[in-house]
Amino acid sequence: EHFSSEKYIQIQFADQKQEFNKRPTKIGRRSLSRSISQSSTDSYSSAASYTDSSDDETSPRDKQQKNSKGSSDFCIKNIKQADFGRREIEIAEQEMPALMALRKRAQGEKPLAGAKIVGCTHITAQTAVLMETLAALGAQCRWAACNIYSTQNEVAAALAEGGMFWIEITVLDIILDDGGDLTHWIYKKYPNMFKKIKGIVEESVTGVHRLYQLSKAGKLCVPAMNVNDSVTKQKFDNLYCCRESILDGLKRTTDVMFGGKQVVVCGYGEVGKGCCAALKAMGSIVYVTEIDPICALQACMDGFRLVKLNEVIRQVDIVITCTGNKNVVVREYLDRMKNGCIVCNMGHSNTEIDVASLRTPELTWERVRSQVDHVIWPDGKRIVLLAEGRLLNLSCSTVPTFVLSITATTQALALIELYNAPEGRYKQDVYLLPKKMDEYVASLHLPTFDAHLTELTDEQAKYLGLNKNGPFKPNYYR
Amino acid sequence: EHFSSEKYIQIQFADQKQEFNKRPTKIGRRSLSRSISQSSTDSYSSAASYTDSSDDETSPRDKQQKNSKGSSDFCIKNIKQADFGRREIEIAEQEMPALMALRKRAQGEKPLAGAKIVGCTHITAQTAVLMETLAALGAQCRWAACNIYSTQNEVAAALAEGGMFWIEITVLDIILDDGGDLTHWIYKKYPNMFKKIKGIVEESVTGVHRLYQLSKAGKLCVPAMNVNDSVTKQKFDNLYCCRESILDGLKRTTDVMFGGKQVVVCGYGEVGKGCCAALKAMGSIVYVTEIDPICALQACMDGFRLVKLNEVIRQVDIVITCTGNKNVVVREYLDRMKNGCIVCNMGHSNTEIDVASLRTPELTWERVRSQVDHVIWPDGKRIVLLAEGRLLNLSCSTVPTFVLSITATTQALALIELYNAPEGRYKQDVYLLPKKMDEYVASLHLPTFDAHLTELTDEQAKYLGLNKNGPFKPNYYR
Amino acid sequence: EHFSSEKYIQIQFADQKQEFNKRPTKIGRRSLSRSISQSSTDSYSSAASYTDSSDDETSPRDKQQKNSKGSSDFCIKNIKQADFGRREIEIAEQEMPALMALRKRAQGEKPLAGAKIVGCTHITAQTAVLMETLAALGAQCRWAACNIYSTQNEVAAALAEGGMFWIEITVLDIILDDGGDLTHWIYKKYPNMFKKIKGIVEESVTGVHRLYQLSKAGKLCVPAMNVNDSVTKQKFDNLYCCRESILDGLKRTTDVMFGGKQVVVCGYGEVGKGCCAALKAMGSIVYVTEIDPICALQACMDGFRLVKLNEVIRQVDIVITCTGNKNVVVREYLDRMKNGCIVCNMGHSNTEIDVASLRTPELTWERVRSQVDHVIWPDGKRIVLLAEGRLLNLSCSTVPTFVLSITATTQALALIELYNAPEGRYKQDVYLLPKKMDEYVASLHLPTFDAHLTELTDEQAKYLGLNKNGPFKPNYYR
Amino acid sequence: EHFSSEKYIQIQFADQKQEFNKRPTKIGRRSLSRSISQSSTDSYSSAASYTDSSDDETSPRDKQQKNSKGSSDFCIKNIKQADFGRREIEIAEQEMPALMALRKRAQGEKPLAGAKIVGCTHITAQTAVLMETLAALGAQCRWAACNIYSTQNEVAAALAEGGMFWIEITVLDIILDDGGDLTHWIYKKYPNMFKKIKGIVEESVTGVHRLYQLSKAGKLCVPAMNVNDSVTKQKFDNLYCCRESILDGLKRTTDVMFGGKQVVVCGYGEVGKGCCAALKAMGSIVYVTEIDPICALQACMDGFRLVKLNEVIRQVDIVITCTGNKNVVVREYLDRMKNGCIVCNMGHSNTEIDVASLRTPELTWERVRSQVDHVIWPDGKRIVLLAEGRLLNLSCSTVPTFVLSITATTQALALIELYNAPEGRYKQDVYLLPKKMDEYVASLHLPTFDAHLTELTDEQAKYLGLNKNGPFKPNYYR
Repeated sequence: EHFSSEKYIQIQFADQKQEFNKRPTKIGRRSLSRSISQSSTDSYSSAASYTDSSDDETSPRDKQQKNSKGSSDFCIKNIKQADFGRREIEIAEQEMPALMALRKRAQGEKPLAGAKIVGCTHITAQTAVLMETLAALGAQCRWAACNIYSTQNEVAAALAEGGMFWIEITVLDIILDDGGDLTHWIYKKYPNMFKKIKGIVEESVTGVHRLYQLSKAGKLCVPAMNVNDSVTKQKFDNLYCCRESILDGLKRTTDVMFGGKQVVVCGYGEVGKGCCAALKAMGSIVYVTEIDPICALQACMDGFRLVKLNEVIRQVDIVITCTGNKNVVVREYLDRMKNGCIVCNMGHSNTEIDVASLRTPELTWERVRSQVDHVIWPDGKRIVLLAEGRLLNLSCSTVPTFVLSITATTQALALIELYNAPEGRYKQDVYLLPKKMDEYVASLHLPTFDAHLTELTDEQAKYLGLNKNGPFKPNYYR
Repeated sequence: EHFSSEKYIQIQFADQKQEFNKRPTKIGRRSLSRSISQSSTDSYSSAASYTDSSDDETSPRDKQQKNSKGSSDFCIKNIKQADFGRREIEIAEQEMPALMALRKRAQGEKPLAGAKIVGCTHITAQTAVLMETLAALGAQCRWAACNIYSTQNEVAAALAEGGMFWIEITVLDIILDDGGDLTHWIYKKYPNMFKKIKGIVEESVTGVHRLYQLSKAGKLCVPAMNVNDSVTKQKFDNLYCCRESILDGLKRTTDVMFGGKQVVVCGYGEVGKGCCAALKAMGSIVYVTEIDPICALQACMDGFRLVKLNEVIRQVDIVITCTGNKNVVVREYLDRMKNGCIVCNMGHSNTEIDVASLRTPELTWERVRSQVDHVIWPDGKRIVLLAEGRLLNLSCSTVPTFVLSITATTQALALIELYNAPEGRYKQDVYLLPKKMDEYVASLHLPTFDAHLTELTDEQAKYLGLNKNGPFKPNYYR
Repeated sequence: EHFSSEKYIQIQFADQKQEFNKRPTKIGRRSLSRSISQSSTDSYSSAASYTDSSDDETSPRDKQQKNSKGSSDFCIKNIKQADFGRREIEIAEQEMPALMALRKRAQGEKPLAGAKIVGCTHITAQTAVLMETLAALGAQCRWAACNIYSTQNEVAAALAEGGMFWIEITVLDIILDDGGDLTHWIYKKYPNMFKKIKGIVEESVTGVHRLYQLSKAGKLCVPAMNVNDSVTKQKFDNLYCCRESILDGLKRTTDVMFGGKQVVVCGYGEVGKGCCAALKAMGSIVYVTEIDPICALQACMDGFRLVKLNEVIRQVDIVITCTGNKNVVVREYLDRMKNGCIVCNMGHSNTEIDVASLRTPELTWERVRSQVDHVIWPDGKRIVLLAEGRLLNLSCSTVPTFVLSITATTQALALIELYNAPEGRYKQDVYLLPKKMDEYVASLHLPTFDAHLTELTDEQAKYLGLNKNGPFKPNYYR
Repeated sequence: EHFSSEKYIQIQFADQKQEFNKRPTKIGRRSLSRSISQSSTDSYSSAASYTDSSDDETSPRDKQQKNSKGSSDFCIKNIKQADFGRREIEIAEQEMPALMALRKRAQGEKPLAGAKIVGCTHITAQTAVLMETLAALGAQCRWAACNIYSTQNEVAAALAEGGMFWIEITVLDIILDDGGDLTHWIYKKYPNMFKKIKGIVEESVTGVHRLYQLSKAGKLCVPAMNVNDSVTKQKFDNLYCCRESILDGLKRTTDVMFGGKQVVVCGYGEVGKGCCAALKAMGSIVYVTEIDPICALQACMDGFRLVKLNEVIRQVDIVITCTGNKNVVVREYLDRMKNGCIVCNMGHSNTEIDVASLRTPELTWERVRSQVDHVIWPDGKRIVLLAEGRLLNLSCSTVPTFVLSITATTQALALIELYNAPEGRYKQDVYLLPKKMDEYVASLHLPTFDAHLTELTDEQAKYLGLNKNGPFKPNYYR
């Protein structure tokens, strides 16, 4: 979720095409072509049958396309994929019960009636369900992609075909951002408009970091909601997603057998905890590295040997980084790995493995499958590098829709809260969603599991000093 | 850890014997005799061979005892048990590496030199190691038992024999409390002295709750350290302790086989998470009840059916409460349980199971073993009630010394911090220990596991915006 | 379950008192006194409150006792314990559903009507339920203890009070043996009677081994049922029992925390598999040693590092033997263990740890608790030796009654089969119980779990070539 | 692994082209076209980048192809894929250490020198490694595919390019079969030749079944080795493979999140045990159905609710069959499943789910992805059917090469044993490989895990009555 200047805004603002087009053209084109193979990989599971290779090399900006209603106010790869994208969206809807519940509840009063929302997120079936939910709640939306690598082109086509994106940017109410690019761009381009909006909802580590910096510098002139640090995002998105996607990502790329394999996981935060639990359960022998003594002690109590990377680097079969740090796996370690060692990154951006250090003349790169490179040493030793060190879970596996649903619902509620909050409730600062809303998000996801919540009796509520409807825990609880 | 008026202060303050003696005499004696059988059970594993039944019925207050140095400034059950208690303390020392490390580091400068500390805690081998560590760090201590049920009499004897408890209460510097009784008592009896002390360190939910109430009411006139909510206590004491003690407590009392048993765990906080994980691993089928949707969703994702108690009450073999709430298992549920169902409490105090509702004429109670009652319905159905609804882990199992070591070390560091803090660092408020100290506590426990922490490079520390020595996480992280 | 000459036959054959009395007197007395402390330990959980120390040193043979009906045809420790023993038997009945079901089904026709059975087994609440079931099925029984260490004296008292043991040995039909002692004794003493009996049912490794030797030597003149190798005994008794008793045994003796501990388990048969699974689940880091490459490969695939003992002996916290072999942990390894290392045996007899090698002058032994010795090296290093190297699960933990129920039911069915088999079905050989009976034993235990078996349709049975009522698997399947 | 008349023999016997061509032409062509999409799916992970769709509809038999040495004595899809297939074989070699070790050991004496082997197996990278190992051991081979669905065409090309297949069928020594088709065909076509061969090695359930039938009928005139029932195949191939492939197969086809899902697994044999363990570890709630009380009791002790299918069919999210039976999931159950329920088969052939019953007019089939059909009820309910009820692990996931290596090595050793056995060691019967060879196979796989086996001392071997080099267990042990 690192911010990348290579991104390409897909569904542009009507009056701003010029600016958008000028900026990233050259880089955009290159990265676009690179993204094609990847995107076809990503969508294997979701869209394996579709491959229209004829226009791979044409930029969306150079094409003229119309949807079935005659509108051409969009910029996507291929409008013809709309039907296929629609099916993907429908499949996603089934795993996003909370957003569908919001739609149903909003049939009477529409909490976002009249709201003009501009969003910049990954364009996937899941975010499409979010967008269309916002529309169902009364909002007018306009959207851009925050990352071309993750864009599902067929979904973008379905959205464009849906034709809901007709607001003018000058009447913007709220920004929904992922990474902070859109916020930054509006802040720079339309400083006046920026002051008039009701707020920003941001879900990424990077975007939140930038908001806090703005705030510290006294330059944040609207309220902002930090969705990233909500308990539902931290505990569900990271822990439970990664528990499943580490297995999926490794299998799809390498078919490796987990049983008996020696694995070192760098970092024992939520992501590392998820990876370690899954691999241990599958019969791998897992070592952990940590810098934080508290997480280190948790690793020990959970049954993992806590080591320094150099202690096990010669013997492990798989190296997984989950630190959020940079240069965790450097050339020195890569040189000492054994033949066939798999190296991948589940953490942050593409910084954790020093991939650049492998681009030296004596090493040979061989692309053996999509997303899989063999890097070959002069003595014949091969390292199996996945996704060129980028995020394995985004590049090589799917993310469970249900878990994404939790974050998407949090975003929707944050938008509703900002749009409807009485004057003065939120100042020019960064806020966490109130605990009670976290709890509401969670409660909307329980019916999926046919889960039955217990209610406090009056007597119990009084004894605990709680309201029967929550919040049940202090804000800092997680 | 609920406060009970039945408690009995063991090692009294020199000039206050009268007051102490007057207050709880009658109740004290009754509860004392009840505690004898229990304490002999508790100490089974630690002291099974010792039983001096001759003086069971005599209150410590009615006895005149002297230690080997001729001092009689203590009030304990039997000074003759000192040798045996000393051995128990020595065994505990081996599992409390951090306190022993503090002793070693303090050989030069003594961070508590001159400090007068009055404590009121459980009197066990583990707290004895804490006390003697404080003494080794330079403090003068005087101690009382916060709970007669948990007192290991032989350890009290060893402490009295050690003879370190000779301060006058009027020169008190810091209070180390567990439950808030001592704080309350001094607050009431010596309001002037209370204002002069450097602070209070409190480790229990109840005690912390009382401190916040004092603070809210504007009556807290000294700084207080809330040790209970430190991440090390929450995540280690609760999760990891209960993961082991639920199995131990059930086995020692009932010999029940876990494999295939249907169990309902009420509450999915840290304690419930520990119980569920252990029982699932042993082959039990576990159901969970929850009031908080967030914890409920975690239970679902972790693979447990979330139900209301009445949905499964007829079919389960074991019912375990971990809620912190009251009247979670009421007579209505007890009436519907099947024959042989085991009922116990891992949560809070003795409130969770409505034991009082079982004291009705039509039900017969049969004590089948220590801590185990059969409650028999007119139709012959038997419920197996453990520890009369009090805490199973305190009453019927041992708690791993190593985990207690983490909390004890946190207490020691809190005392050092309060005693050495420059004027003005702490106001008349309740504080959490700084994250960095949590991390220090954790780091002192890593050598036990031969665990090797990774250090940040300068470049990485800069990238992450962190100091290489920590703190590595924000205060709210857990 | 090793054969020991120290055993003491408790409930003697009416006309053979002389012989019995003469043989083991001296040894018997010594071992008896040793067994007292142990037996009181063993029965901690089941009978902690009862201790009648007055007659500890008196041999049962030297006492005259009568039961309430005036009979004195028994030889037990103390008939006064009968009531207490009866309660223990009743508790066991609740966990032995299959035997109780057999009793119910046998109310009409009694499959053992008239059978004279002489048994020699552990005398516990569980075997008592078996004996009384045999009686309910029509048999007349007479019993002896195969091991004084495991005898629950209160249960023996209850059985003697029950007064069912009035057959003459000369009209013996079947032998139920555990270890082969009784078989051997009758074979030697009453060679003529031995030839007339209908058969022998034997459940121990040792006893079965002796039967095969007899058979090989052509000296087995009656059919024998090998219950030990039935699939239910192997897979349930060993795997599931040990999974629970390893945790129980370690906790009761040492209170050790499992989380983060490094453990080496010697042997990865069913017992080792159970130990490893439990400890891994509790957060221990487990290493395995094996001699058999197949079991070794299973250990690898299950996620355990396969090592030689000397590779990890310096670093582990706990050493557990489960090999069935001798001298697995020898002095050389004991010398190199670290301070505080716990050593125990879950495998076979007392041969696996070379305890004798620790009885040298430079080492000090200190009994710190019942069943727990510290062996202290000259430099102060302490090894924690449990049960002096005897079986931890028999000495220091309870065995789940439910699992014992499976073996006991198998024994009962073997007895019925031998007693009712038509002439010629069984020759002078050692037999395994037919698969179908194994399946029947299992089916009798399913109601405990409210488990519902699926039935084959006619079409499916035909497709699979199976009878709808089983057997469902070939005899060799396990 | 069911025998299908649709199979197509790929690499034909030189003098038998006529016969082969005549037989299955029409069926072969149809099934071939169906196999294309599947095979491209199967090889996604291994060969995603290659798609030469130009000749999809041409049968191999209608093509004239030559390898680089000018030979055209083969019948494969496309010789141009040889390079790509070679790379796949090389990758597989790295995970098949035992076969590579056999090659190394055979550099001096070649145990299969001169052996003429005809094989009929799946044609995959893994079997290619086996074939080339046999060649390296001195054998001359000729091969056919046992199943067109599983054939990796690029691997077939690489093998054809390698050009090792030049024996005449009339000088055949041993048959290596998978399913019994080849055996049957030779038995029918060349009865004389059949009598002269040294033996048959068969690895499938079906093939073994047919051999036992031949043997019973007195028609088996050569020795046959039953590789299917070797302990390594049963315990490793089934348990450990399925533990991984159930997760992989479900993810690749449906992206389903496992956490919190309710799953019913029909059958608790080795395959079911693997599926249940994996899903439980990933946070699913798993129910089990069984017909065999022993396996049922194991399921209970392992922590699964044992139910009849109709008890849970309305509530589960996923249904998995692992029974080896037919019509386990019939239309009646399919009618009652909830919307979105996923149905798949991990067991045997395509018989377990009654897919035919879904081919009725009122139900709509929609192919949503490769291997994934939505079957839609009139009310809109959708069932997600995977691989049309065929084996999920063969159709939709990869099988870990390492586990296949175990079986392949067993096959190689069986071939060596049959070829070198002295006259008379094997009669006209079906044999299991001796335990010692199972152990040898396992030992060859240990170095992969850097696993170190312990050796018995002379004293220990004597105590146990074992040879120090094995076998360590009786033949029936598993």
